[in-house]
Amino acid sequence: MPSIAVVQGASRGIGLQFCRTLLQRTEVNVIATCRCPDQALDLNCLYKEHKERLNVMKMDVTQEDAIKETAEMVEQQFKKVDLLINCAAMLHPSGRGETSLRDVSFEGVQATLATNTIGPLLMAKYFSPMLSKGSGSFGLHSSNKKETHSGILVNMSARVGSISDNGLGGWYSYRMSKSALNMATRNLSIELRRRSKGKVICIALHPGTVNTDLSRPYHRNVPKEKLFSTLHSVECMMAVISKLTLMDSGKYFAFDGTKIPF
Amino acid sequence: MPSIAVVQGASRGIGLQFCRTLLQRTEVNVIATCRCPDQALDLNCLYKEHKERLNVMKMDVTQEDAIKETAEMVEQQFKKVDLLINCAAMLHPSGRGETSLRDVSFEGVQATLATNTIGPLLMAKYFSPMLSKGSGSFGLHSSNKKETHSGILVNMSARVGSISDNGLGGWYSYRMSKSALNMATRNLSIELRRRSKGKVICIALHPGTVNTDLSRPYHRNVPKEKLFSTLHSVECMMAVISKLTLMDSGKYFAFDGTKIPF
Repeated sequence: MPSIAVVQGASRGIGLQFCRTLLQRTEVNVIATCRCPDQALDLNCLYKEHKERLNVMKMDVTQEDAIKETAEMVEQQFKKVDLLINCAAMLHPSGRGETSLRDVSFEGVQATLATNTIGPLLMAKYFSPMLSKGSGSFGLHSSNKKETHSGILVNMSARVGSISDNGLGGWYSYRMSKSALNMATRNLSIELRRRSKGKVICIALHPGTVNTDLSRPYHRNVPKEKLFSTLHSVECMMAVISKLTLMDSGKYFAFDGTKIPF
Repeated sequence: MPSIAVVQGASRGIGLQFCRTLLQRTEVNVIATCRCPDQALDLNCLYKEHKERLNVMKMDVTQEDAIKETAEMVEQQFKKVDLLINCAAMLHPSGRGETSLRDVSFEGVQATLATNTIGPLLMAKYFSPMLSKGSGSFGLHSSNKKETHSGILVNMSARVGSISDNGLGGWYSYRMSKSALNMATRNLSIELRRRSKGKVICIALHPGTVNTDLSRPYHRNVPKEKLFSTLHSVECMMAVISKLTLMDSGKYFAFDGTKIPF
């Protein structure tokens, strides 16, 4: 039976790279969601290479009905999900994080929270029943049957979402969205471990500072050795995912497997 | 010169009690904001007792324009603010926190975040210039001139907003809103300490489990000695506020002055 991975926010950046890396494993089927598949040129190229194992679905993560419909389609076609990765995120609708309170607006914070925080939580709402039917094909197998997991839910967070680690300030909307996402992940880890069967590992994951559209305006301040390609970042994160057990659920990991304080 | 305190969300519960307790100090003028002053019977009674020193202003904290207008009125009338306390909060628009993912909805999370998180941040945006003109009449005076503060901003948080302390789950919207508010508070503490003059102390504060409309449906699970009256809670919190210095800015305190981990 193939492994099923859902990558939400797959048109570019880290999400696109997760699709590429996952498709290198011939046993994996990938469902890639994004708002505008027509404009996702790289994802379409990838589709042409992997028509048998890549399914591109149009979905806006800020539309609850769209998430529900997508989940129903996946359920009909695949019955289960082994890995769900929530990737879609913005720094701010303007493309630039707030440098000070002056830049903060109700609409800006609200839109950032909708995509970065509420969307991933609603993905969990509609996909967790399928994650509970997963085969546990990602992560480490436990010899203890009670500690066996069926699926893994990864919420792409960021180190700047750490409240205790915040020494610089700024980026109000983005930071707040990731702190709230970390709380959502923690809550999910508790709820989805209570099930006697079909337990789901839920983690928040920091990808490192990656060369993507989201962070590009800020790269001149990042030392070169700390600026990762999406390939390197995703390979590191897949290594973290491959070692996960239920004991890790609810935690906040960096790309190198170290724990980040909330 | 009188001390000026702004209590946002003052129609009932903790906000109303802050108004009462602050007005016992004859040198304090209180500006109390709420959505519907006409329906705020207790606040109106308080107004009849303290017409000289209590100003009730109609303001919906989810409307950025309304916050801006209110700030302009306060600026014209009082020039400065010494203490701003953001109190308005909801568990969920339904009045009941989510017990599981089933209860989570886009609209529910969004509305909770608007009132509990974005509102307080926008209050900081429009009121921080006045807090920087405060007289430092709340909190501890520092003998070091560089460490003198002008104003204090208190965001009413809650222990259930602690991510690391979350062992029970549930209450998705409320927990996420308070984690995000804690991040906002941390960010504000950094930005509002950078000013050479007019530094503002910003803290997140947990009031204890208080007998208010917000938490009433949940009281049967709370041991009697842990269920506070609003009076007791506010007196404890005023004691915490009275001891604040700039060194405390960015921290997350319980009503008894202990620090809560994020």
